[in-house]
Amino acid sequence: MDEHERRTAVIDLGSNTFRLVVFTAVPGSWWKRTDEIYDAVRIGAGQSADGALQPEPMERALVTLDAYAHFCRAIRLEDVRPVATSAIREATNREDFLRAARERTGLEVRVLTREEEAWYGYLAAANSSTLEDGVVLDIGGGSMQLTRVAGRHAEDLRSWRLGALRMTERFLDEGPATKKQLKALRAHVAEELAVAPWLPGSERIVGLGGTVRNLAAAAELERGLPSYGVQGFVLRRSALDALIDELAAIPAAERGRVPGIKEERGDVILGGAVVVQQVMERAGCDALEVTEAGLREGVFFEGHLAGADPPLFDDVRRASVCNLARQYDFHRAHVNHVAALSCQMFDELGAAGAHPNDPHEREILWAAAMLHDIGTTVDYDDHHKHSRYLILSAGLPGYTQREISLIAQAARYHRKGSPSLGEFASLARDGDEQLLVRCSALLRLAEQLDRSRDQLVREAHVHTDNGDVQLELVADGDPGVARWAAERQADLFRRAFERDLSLAA
Amino acid sequence: MDEHERRTAVIDLGSNTFRLVVFTAVPGSWWKRTDEIYDAVRIGAGQSADGALQPEPMERALVTLDAYAHFCRAIRLEDVRPVATSAIREATNREDFLRAARERTGLEVRVLTREEEAWYGYLAAANSSTLEDGVVLDIGGGSMQLTRVAGRHAEDLRSWRLGALRMTERFLDEGPATKKQLKALRAHVAEELAVAPWLPGSERIVGLGGTVRNLAAAAELERGLPSYGVQGFVLRRSALDALIDELAAIPAAERGRVPGIKEERGDVILGGAVVVQQVMERAGCDALEVTEAGLREGVFFEGHLAGADPPLFDDVRRASVCNLARQYDFHRAHVNHVAALSCQMFDELGAAGAHPNDPHEREILWAAAMLHDIGTTVDYDDHHKHSRYLILSAGLPGYTQREISLIAQAARYHRKGSPSLGEFASLARDGDEQLLVRCSALLRLAEQLDRSRDQLVREAHVHTDNGDVQLELVADGDPGVARWAAERQADLFRRAFERDLSLAA
Repeated sequence: MDEHERRTAVIDLGSNTFRLVVFTAVPGSWWKRTDEIYDAVRIGAGQSADGALQPEPMERALVTLDAYAHFCRAIRLEDVRPVATSAIREATNREDFLRAARERTGLEVRVLTREEEAWYGYLAAANSSTLEDGVVLDIGGGSMQLTRVAGRHAEDLRSWRLGALRMTERFLDEGPATKKQLKALRAHVAEELAVAPWLPGSERIVGLGGTVRNLAAAAELERGLPSYGVQGFVLRRSALDALIDELAAIPAAERGRVPGIKEERGDVILGGAVVVQQVMERAGCDALEVTEAGLREGVFFEGHLAGADPPLFDDVRRASVCNLARQYDFHRAHVNHVAALSCQMFDELGAAGAHPNDPHEREILWAAAMLHDIGTTVDYDDHHKHSRYLILSAGLPGYTQREISLIAQAARYHRKGSPSLGEFASLARDGDEQLLVRCSALLRLAEQLDRSRDQLVREAHVHTDNGDVQLELVADGDPGVARWAAERQADLFRRAFERDLSLAA
Repeated sequence: MDEHERRTAVIDLGSNTFRLVVFTAVPGSWWKRTDEIYDAVRIGAGQSADGALQPEPMERALVTLDAYAHFCRAIRLEDVRPVATSAIREATNREDFLRAARERTGLEVRVLTREEEAWYGYLAAANSSTLEDGVVLDIGGGSMQLTRVAGRHAEDLRSWRLGALRMTERFLDEGPATKKQLKALRAHVAEELAVAPWLPGSERIVGLGGTVRNLAAAAELERGLPSYGVQGFVLRRSALDALIDELAAIPAAERGRVPGIKEERGDVILGGAVVVQQVMERAGCDALEVTEAGLREGVFFEGHLAGADPPLFDDVRRASVCNLARQYDFHRAHVNHVAALSCQMFDELGAAGAHPNDPHEREILWAAAMLHDIGTTVDYDDHHKHSRYLILSAGLPGYTQREISLIAQAARYHRKGSPSLGEFASLARDGDEQLLVRCSALLRLAEQLDRSRDQLVREAHVHTDNGDVQLELVADGDPGVARWAAERQADLFRRAFERDLSLAA
């Protein structure tokens, strides 16, 4: 373990699920989730009218918490942050529970206020999406939080007792949902939302929490899209409506068998889905942007980004790419140089009218260059394929799934092969295949120019003459091998830019 | 970088290809290939009758070597071991070349004797296969080495001027190969092999080198097998014969388009293939076991295993598993404990007649347990799938492809899902599906028993009663969560052992 590594455990005592998440980070460099256990404890199950936790769920909760405490001691974790939300916050016997937790497990559980709960959801969303102005929706088992965001800042933090477990217990039963039940649930949510006058007309909604992740996974599978998690997935209102119809038509016990919905969440998913639907309805939004980050990440980010106020990454997209690159940290000077050479050639070719000069394309090229070699960690052979796999598996918060697929494919083709969108054709826009070919061609050229890994070729300049492209290398010595290697990329270059490439003498 | 990490570059100046390989290792813990560049330099091309290196190939070689020297300085590699083989060894002007290399690149190239070249091939094979008694075949561009192995020791080290490039230039031309040409080549090889009287009747042959890897890749694709490299692939004589027929029927320039054969090796592959075929013929072996290790690994192992004489791993299979486990080094105490609990339950169930008690099955279970969590490095979510990917991508020298697929699938199913052979059904033997279910069931049970990660459940003992199985836990405290979690595995246990599982009070 790197001596600068810090580990933090966040224990989320949710109304539906308890979850222990371990984050490992080198401050200022990288962070990642490195461990997790979760249990559908359902501490809020059957919470009586006066709001007391029931003996059985409470005992399940204490035994589970004790296992988590064992876990933390086993891996010598000292920074442990247990936080409780709605079910415990609102329980009349919460002090009994907190005392028992302290005595049996040694853990001091911090009960979040409604505003704090919304705050951590906001931090999770604002650090894993490009949300500038809009709404963060965080739905748990007991409560649902909406935060109004303007200029990336939280302007209004709200919480409602509209969690998935709570709504299911109050409005639905074990059979298929009746129209009457759904109508009553919808009316209740609509009425509650009236206190957020800023909700109608929201530009964007970013959604988080287990309910949202499960609905997104179901919609993703339904559309037959390649499935590498739901980070950046856009859940359309029409897809959500169709899912709700499907879930309502079957008994609660069968809902966990719908592909994408987890077994242990099946019986409460419908209540949560209807709440999400009503928020979208009232906001007038046709789409919900999904992030995999949740309350736990929010608690973690507060510490990890403590130097900033509010604790936000300056640029989420850039932070995501650098985070992944640094986790693997393969020949940093080489990687940075390949990124610089690629972008330099991109800019000069753009100025010469050889491509559309789209800044988003440049960002995709840069990201692919920064990540092209990370697969070496898996195995040197086929490391281009491994880089693709690692990019897709880790995801890049702040990028759309389409963008991530383009970055992954460009990394895939940084050494050889004929660039194609492959399984991602369904995510692509018009012109994406050609964009990928351009990015792959420049990345491969830059990679060959730094074949010696010592930045011998300092700069590569583009000259156009009768439409052909001549590349001029500025080098600290004889760039012989780089020249040969670059010349071998002429075919792909022609496919990318429809111009012939030659190397200046 | 871990302070104990040591990096070694081996530069292999082969007759066909130059290759720089970087090995990173923590002595006594793990090693891996972390970087590589190669160029089809063809220094031996057109080597004249009197054996002088030609000016053009020599210049290509020097420029390439200079780029490698830049590379080593760029990544601050101090332990650089350049070794030359047949083409340079046998060149009349070799001293000119070595002097020019020293002056232009600063590299002191060590020319291996014929016996040394065979020795490093032997070290590569003996450390990446289970070969006890048999033959190591290493065919390069200029020469071909055979080493007789008895009790894992090299008994006779031989080298012939029968390399792929050399044979192609001498016996074949650019067109399809004629029967006459092939006959002459075969006769020449057969005649040369007469000096190895121990070759006929060899038990096993392990093959290495680019020719062998390419032939294996082509045969693997031809059979439509899942392709995760050729480590452990068994090349059948019948498959090789068919490939030779296919390659002989087309001109040399088209042979690089046969799937599995690399473009830059296409024009010399046939000469090498016929040599391999003749060795198998003379040895009377129907199968060649392929390893991806080569001369470079041999040179590396000599340093890495310097404490042993000869420098061999005690147990290649065990070393492969530990090597991969330590590269990721996820919660070592937990992983070791899961392996111990799995094997303990396996043994006691075997004693009770609940399964066939096959030591190979136990070894697969042990390996899967040791590697089940390595995927956490990629991403916590779906880490069971990532573990599978990492195992398949890295390979496990010493295990067959069938065994590796079973280990990978058992790791894949250590958390959830219904164990199946998936894409590996074509590699399986009768009963493998059930073997996989048993391994997955025990691994999942052990994983749940150490859910708290602190080895709270020290031992798990099996009692059988009326055919049912009762599990007795020996714990240092209340194993409440472990009990619940283990009970949830009863369904898979029943599928695996056709017995009901319960937990003793």
